[in-house]
Amino acid sequence: AGDVAAGKQKARQCQTCHGLDGVAKIAEAPNLAGQNEHYLVKALGDYRSGARKNEMMSVIAPNLSDQDIADLAAYYAAIEVTVGKRP
Amino acid sequence: AGDVAAGKQKARQCQTCHGLDGVAKIAEAPNLAGQNEHYLVKALGDYRSGARKNEMMSVIAPNLSDQDIADLAAYYAAIEVTVGKRP
Repeated sequence: AGDVAAGKQKARQCQTCHGLDGVAKIAEAPNLAGQNEHYLVKALGDYRSGARKNEMMSVIAPNLSDQDIADLAAYYAAIEVTVGKRP
Repeated sequence: AGDVAAGKQKARQCQTCHGLDGVAKIAEAPNLAGQNEHYLVKALGDYRSGARKNEMMSVIAPNLSDQDIADLAAYYAAIEVTVGKRP
């Protein structure tokens, strides 16, 4: 399973685009705060294997271990998010 | 540009997995509430073109028009989300 504290350290390499708070800093990047942990693990795995491609992620993800992926997913999923009003 | 009200109607086909509130109802699906509009348009376009593949989305997305994609992205991006405490 992922280690949230370890994930927080590892998220430093993600913060330029995704923020440490999980709120995207660039228009192309998704918000990750409170995202579904299972989905994040799948997405990072797909970027690492090449099943999913992105200019940035295809360069970063291949360096991630299974533990890195689990920790990063656990961290971003653990950020509290409250869903408010719907349009 | 996307029409949020139209997107809300069209989101009925998404709610089983993503919820009308944008909170994922199945572990494999991502939360969409308050997601980055630009990212959602890109993701739906990639599922439609096949640049990105998923069991469900690869069946649904090819039926979406550019306006459908813009409306759905506008709707889910417009759902208010507050990011709270970080671990």
